[in-house]
Amino acid sequence: MPDTATLICDLARQFYDLGWVTGTGGGICIRDGEYVIVAPSGVQKERMTPDQMFTLSVDGSVVKGPADPSLRPSDCTSLFMAAIRLRGAGAVIHSHSIHAMIATLFFDSEFSISDLEMIKGIEGMQYHDRLVVPIIENTSRECDLAASLEAAIVAYPYTRAVLVRRHGVYVWGKDWVQAKTQAECYDYLFRAAAELRRLGIPTVTLKGVSDASLPSRPAEPFIRS
Amino acid sequence: MPDTATLICDLARQFYDLGWVTGTGGGICIRDGEYVIVAPSGVQKERMTPDQMFTLSVDGSVVKGPADPSLRPSDCTSLFMAAIRLRGAGAVIHSHSIHAMIATLFFDSEFSISDLEMIKGIEGMQYHDRLVVPIIENTSRECDLAASLEAAIVAYPYTRAVLVRRHGVYVWGKDWVQAKTQAECYDYLFRAAAELRRLGIPTVTLKGVSDASLPSRPAEPFIRS
Amino acid sequence: MPDTATLICDLARQFYDLGWVTGTGGGICIRDGEYVIVAPSGVQKERMTPDQMFTLSVDGSVVKGPADPSLRPSDCTSLFMAAIRLRGAGAVIHSHSIHAMIATLFFDSEFSISDLEMIKGIEGMQYHDRLVVPIIENTSRECDLAASLEAAIVAYPYTRAVLVRRHGVYVWGKDWVQAKTQAECYDYLFRAAAELRRLGIPTVTLKGVSDASLPSRPAEPFIRS
Amino acid sequence: MPDTATLICDLARQFYDLGWVTGTGGGICIRDGEYVIVAPSGVQKERMTPDQMFTLSVDGSVVKGPADPSLRPSDCTSLFMAAIRLRGAGAVIHSHSIHAMIATLFFDSEFSISDLEMIKGIEGMQYHDRLVVPIIENTSRECDLAASLEAAIVAYPYTRAVLVRRHGVYVWGKDWVQAKTQAECYDYLFRAAAELRRLGIPTVTLKGVSDASLPSRPAEPFIRS
Repeated sequence: MPDTATLICDLARQFYDLGWVTGTGGGICIRDGEYVIVAPSGVQKERMTPDQMFTLSVDGSVVKGPADPSLRPSDCTSLFMAAIRLRGAGAVIHSHSIHAMIATLFFDSEFSISDLEMIKGIEGMQYHDRLVVPIIENTSRECDLAASLEAAIVAYPYTRAVLVRRHGVYVWGKDWVQAKTQAECYDYLFRAAAELRRLGIPTVTLKGVSDASLPSRPAEPFIRS
Repeated sequence: MPDTATLICDLARQFYDLGWVTGTGGGICIRDGEYVIVAPSGVQKERMTPDQMFTLSVDGSVVKGPADPSLRPSDCTSLFMAAIRLRGAGAVIHSHSIHAMIATLFFDSEFSISDLEMIKGIEGMQYHDRLVVPIIENTSRECDLAASLEAAIVAYPYTRAVLVRRHGVYVWGKDWVQAKTQAECYDYLFRAAAELRRLGIPTVTLKGVSDASLPSRPAEPFIRS
Repeated sequence: MPDTATLICDLARQFYDLGWVTGTGGGICIRDGEYVIVAPSGVQKERMTPDQMFTLSVDGSVVKGPADPSLRPSDCTSLFMAAIRLRGAGAVIHSHSIHAMIATLFFDSEFSISDLEMIKGIEGMQYHDRLVVPIIENTSRECDLAASLEAAIVAYPYTRAVLVRRHGVYVWGKDWVQAKTQAECYDYLFRAAAELRRLGIPTVTLKGVSDASLPSRPAEPFIRS
Repeated sequence: MPDTATLICDLARQFYDLGWVTGTGGGICIRDGEYVIVAPSGVQKERMTPDQMFTLSVDGSVVKGPADPSLRPSDCTSLFMAAIRLRGAGAVIHSHSIHAMIATLFFDSEFSISDLEMIKGIEGMQYHDRLVVPIIENTSRECDLAASLEAAIVAYPYTRAVLVRRHGVYVWGKDWVQAKTQAECYDYLFRAAAELRRLGIPTVTLKGVSDASLPSRPAEPFIRS
């Protein structure tokens, strides 16, 4: 098992191949004990090295940084911290996948889909459940998204993802494995929604849909308020 | 030639790159003499290691398991065993390919296509034959699919695959090479069907189609009843 | 520079990643002096090893074969030889690319496109030229295509490719580099044609198109008749 | 950090996997002090070796060439030099990406898009800005594009890219990292434009769009006139 900094670099290469972190966009952070390891801002995600990573405390302050003084922590940091603080996330992935971006173009304030096997990949969800992902409006600066992201997390207590209009998606999980698994499932579902739309098939079926999609295991918040 | 456990890990990485086993979904089992090697449930398919594999007898009981007590055999196990018992399959592949899933959205109870070269990649099929794949309805739990999968295998004695609505496909072959080859051909054909539909071209042509697509070499069942 | 047998295995892995030789379909042969190196029939193209290759004379007879007696030369052999004999090809690529297959569905007897930069990648063609690729009808057995492929080569003296309806394409060049380069350009153009069609744009523009697309350097036949 | 010639080969392999330099098309040059390193013309971009590279002075004359006398500098050289001379580019990328080519088919003389997060990946641009990329008409010979490319660069003082109709795109940056990052963002935006069009959504929104998209840090020309 590689250390967390190495793992982030490895995952970032994989996400690059998936089209999630192209053009230095997107990113990932992973909790490591009391700290959070975060990649630097504006670097080529598929070419990062472990020595470029930042170690932050959960309040976002830098505990340890890379030797290169030109690097600063990811612009996503305040958004990553929102999912960590409010949901106890062990890892947060931010993807610029074109499937996520496109999905925000034909839903209003909520992405909504049901009756697809991949829905079962989201914690607490079953096949017939209606999976809802809140969509927040994009802002000029990434850090300005923090307030509406936090509001969406509060308003949708069981969601594990928040879409950002014309931008991408934030997905989290209790650890990096769950965050990544869920990010893959969401990405598939965003793409599937566009295909359903193209075929003229509603993304939510009317038979047997249960809106009360309570998760089987509620996540524990990392920091209690 | 690697051992069977190593081969499964290797193939799973390849299937991940093909988009068949994203989000821990999908899988593969391979027969090894009297036993069947199966991957664990709910793990990242592109990161599996040989020591995580299960050795099962054909009735599904665990002969040898991984050291990690948190692992359990794939949820697909009972479905894998159906193809092994009823068709003598030497390997079974379960894919969540979006092409397979989408193909279940515009066919009723049978996927049907003819006059494509890739049809010849399915055992016993010729270019002009009509290739039929039964579609069964999805269930909330993967193991609940077993009965309808078995019924489809019985009802379609020459099929080498069963589609699952809004879910994916099960494909098998006499050995892992044939299972994989056929899975690639089916995947191409599912994608081709969507392209044909988009172009307004029927998936089955009317000239020279023969419904009696008998395989040239019927597969032998592994366990005779 | 690897030997020809190793090169074929290397290229086949690359073509697998491009989606050209999935499901054991497609293939490549390369001329090596007076001989032609050909892969075996029905094997997984991305997993071939040099010791599986056949050495054939130009009349198609086996000079040297692999140790494994179950292997036989590619079903494409007689088609490969047609391009070698009639056009002096140094290498022939057979692709099952879905872009090639789809392109045969919305053209009649000729694929035709003009005014795309990638046309310049085909020997003797310029940007404004109309690139024509003959389409022959598919047959149940690959070897039965030989006669119509030869007829198309004779009827289209300047073509470097022949499409096969609902099947794929044969592309050749004076050596493997040119064959591969042209195969990549054709594949791009087949895909582009489908995109143009989707946008409602004709594949051949009316301004400045010259039908007389004579190649700048006519290829020399390998065997003179 | 590899030397510049090695870096070009490495990047070219990556661009091949992205579909930007298929069929020997496309390319990249990188400034190295007073010189510019350029790949040879008409070679397979994913198989280049550092010893095949040319070292040019900024006026385009060859300072050092490869041992192989059959190689000549990329046909793109005069176009690369235009961006270097007029904009002080440290690297220029020429892509044949199908997304770039398709984008030139449904815009007139300017590609135009707004309100997408990936716009922020282009130097000086913000989310709400309208990103404009001039489209020049293609010519039979690549070198004949130089005059209109130069004119477009002059006419659009803040652009970092020029599209070529039915051909592809030239993108540059102050160094190879910025050139590559911007090329990835543009490619995403070209693809997004086609998706928006397919969904019937305008590529430029009317609310809050500012035409005055001045870059925050104007690039310094390499050679002052």
